[in-house]
Amino acid sequence: MNIQVISSVNEARTDDLQHKTVIVIDVLRATSTILRALDAGCSQVIPVETVNQAKSLHRPGELLGGERFCKKIPGFDLGNSPLEYTSELVDGKTIIFTTTNGTRAIQKASKAGHILIGGMLNAEACARKAAMLYGDIVMLCAGTQDVFSLEDGLCAGLLIEELLKLQAEGLIRSAAGTGGGSLTVDDFGLVMLQAYRHVRGNLEGALLSGVGGKRLSRIGFHDDVVYCAQVSILDQAPVVRNGRLEAGMSLPL
Amino acid sequence: MNIQVISSVNEARTDDLQHKTVIVIDVLRATSTILRALDAGCSQVIPVETVNQAKSLHRPGELLGGERFCKKIPGFDLGNSPLEYTSELVDGKTIIFTTTNGTRAIQKASKAGHILIGGMLNAEACARKAAMLYGDIVMLCAGTQDVFSLEDGLCAGLLIEELLKLQAEGLIRSAAGTGGGSLTVDDFGLVMLQAYRHVRGNLEGALLSGVGGKRLSRIGFHDDVVYCAQVSILDQAPVVRNGRLEAGMSLPL
Repeated sequence: MNIQVISSVNEARTDDLQHKTVIVIDVLRATSTILRALDAGCSQVIPVETVNQAKSLHRPGELLGGERFCKKIPGFDLGNSPLEYTSELVDGKTIIFTTTNGTRAIQKASKAGHILIGGMLNAEACARKAAMLYGDIVMLCAGTQDVFSLEDGLCAGLLIEELLKLQAEGLIRSAAGTGGGSLTVDDFGLVMLQAYRHVRGNLEGALLSGVGGKRLSRIGFHDDVVYCAQVSILDQAPVVRNGRLEAGMSLPL
Repeated sequence: MNIQVISSVNEARTDDLQHKTVIVIDVLRATSTILRALDAGCSQVIPVETVNQAKSLHRPGELLGGERFCKKIPGFDLGNSPLEYTSELVDGKTIIFTTTNGTRAIQKASKAGHILIGGMLNAEACARKAAMLYGDIVMLCAGTQDVFSLEDGLCAGLLIEELLKLQAEGLIRSAAGTGGGSLTVDDFGLVMLQAYRHVRGNLEGALLSGVGGKRLSRIGFHDDVVYCAQVSILDQAPVVRNGRLEAGMSLPL
């Protein structure tokens, strides 16, 4: 099983993602918010690219969520802060969701065999699900405006670390469809793994040192960065199916 | 002073390099070989993009060096192995040099304010020179066929580490042209720095784990990888001027 890490949405060629298991990573904050929303009991998240798409899909009783320029969109119920997505507000609800980079990355992966949602928050669950699916793994770092983001790269490194643990336990899918397969990691993934191993003792500090973490801190979302830096606190491994995301636990292994 | 790291030649936009100090990095092996050739006493290296350009520029008494597909080019005097470039062969000579990725990266930087040649071999000298030049720094990782190479990224991390040391000593050029300036590193550079710090105790092992290191080892160039993994053994900080490279010591600070 090959693992490739792509540095930002712009670097991904749709055709290269065909038949692959694509893990979309936007730690600050789209994929972290989606994971939190599903964990808080929302029935589904529908990611869309534009504000107009979101508004035209929206039906009474559903919630509109997302951001432009890090801020809540006028007329929307919720922004892109994972901490807003409490059980009280989202339990049982459908959320139509649009962000600048994260939902665009999900759209870009539309031809993939499987699309998973990855973050620090669900690293173990996400890796477990990817390990047993058919197809090589592509980690698609959303980045910010087509530029690589430190937190997405470090999350890719963390996911590779989790996959290596599964390999050691014989839990990577082999060509025969059973366990016992092995992993090959590309150069970009290897460097992300090395960087993750260097900062694993202080992920929060690492995230706060990046451009995105600094910006969010400056405009009042310091707590979001701290929240999103937590590793494997959610047992969610949601998959995009027919353009929708539903809560999914990691597969039984 | 801003530091930006670009992951491969394809990612660089020529106009973005204008007025910048561009450090071209192709650890395996073009920039390492150029550094070694200059240290061995060759009078100049002329990097060119194509084999035909090299042949048409070539005059009696000059040497032709370079590779295609990691192998010496038919009719050339030397390949792309730094260990071939001994004083006995190259002292006092002009070398016309072409490789698949490294010399293309040098051409790509043609609009830069300054073009420096970087490798593990001359990290300290290269950083010292870049620190006192006018202009922000762009580290252009050559990569392999437009794909990021681990060893180039780790070298960028090493160069950033050397620049941070100079910052601590007050030796980064300020806007006023004196020392005392400060550095800002982009997210990609920060992750390369973290990765470098993780593997600094065993750079040779790290280089041998990458795609390029493995390939070179397999086809008989294991000693090249070991050689190119050495840090700051050469006090060379060559600059490209009028398309030519001459030996240059680091600037007096």
